[in-house]
Amino acid sequence: MPPKYSKMNFSIYSDDSFMRMAMLEAKMAYEQDEVPVGAVIVSKNVVIAKARNSVQQLNDPTAHAELLAISAAAEFLGSKYLNECTLYVTLEPCPMCAGALFWSQMGRVVFATKDEKRGCGLYSPTIYHPKTEVSEGLFADEASLLLKAFFKNKR
Amino acid sequence: MPPKYSKMNFSIYSDDSFMRMAMLEAKMAYEQDEVPVGAVIVSKNVVIAKARNSVQQLNDPTAHAELLAISAAAEFLGSKYLNECTLYVTLEPCPMCAGALFWSQMGRVVFATKDEKRGCGLYSPTIYHPKTEVSEGLFADEASLLLKAFFKNKR
Repeated sequence: MPPKYSKMNFSIYSDDSFMRMAMLEAKMAYEQDEVPVGAVIVSKNVVIAKARNSVQQLNDPTAHAELLAISAAAEFLGSKYLNECTLYVTLEPCPMCAGALFWSQMGRVVFATKDEKRGCGLYSPTIYHPKTEVSEGLFADEASLLLKAFFKNKR
Repeated sequence: MPPKYSKMNFSIYSDDSFMRMAMLEAKMAYEQDEVPVGAVIVSKNVVIAKARNSVQQLNDPTAHAELLAISAAAEFLGSKYLNECTLYVTLEPCPMCAGALFWSQMGRVVFATKDEKRGCGLYSPTIYHPKTEVSEGLFADEASLLLKAFFKNKR
């Protein structure tokens, strides 16, 4: 039987591989009893920031994975504009995070699963910067299952 | 000639007095070459957080006055919920800051001048938490003049 993936098609510099890193961050959040969301920011195929939701741990309602990753990436690059970067995040950004992505002029956003309660798509699609390219669905099932497991345990 | 304000009508625990503090923060931002916006968070008549826009200084696109004040207030109170608090801010919150106010469940928001370009009112009024009481217009002219002076100097 042939292997499912040929080596030729596999790249460590792929959306898949970066979203997998974001999923790892989400799993670490889960283990720390945080709503399991993880984010990774990539610039020219280099991961320059990783973060997970840390609202409980930092006791800070603004400590979402995306916001922490944006601050870290801006510090790393020495620039408040991240228009050459891609953000990978396991859950659709909320209005706060989409607003932060606007100010950073993030080049590209890839999110896994939709947030039916608080995703920014429910409010206004124009919260994102007009130049930001947004795509969704990568690892959506895995990200969604992790979130469901978290909220099931909470009940 | 009678004095313009009688002592009887003046209280240091008034919206006027707290917004004046926020204006002072905005003026300090102006002097540091930041977009001049200031914020103050009050809990039971006590100022528990003050912040000014620090995007340039911190090189962080998320370092708006409101976000910094929310983080500081949550740390001070040891609670991520600020439903007993009032935020005074000199400019209408953007979607990022309104989103942060949602997560903090801020009790009340008083802002000075509308933001015609990026105020959250342009997007969706429901970004705020449904329990947050919002009012506007206090010191609006003063806040607006300071912003206009800043952007005029930039041109």
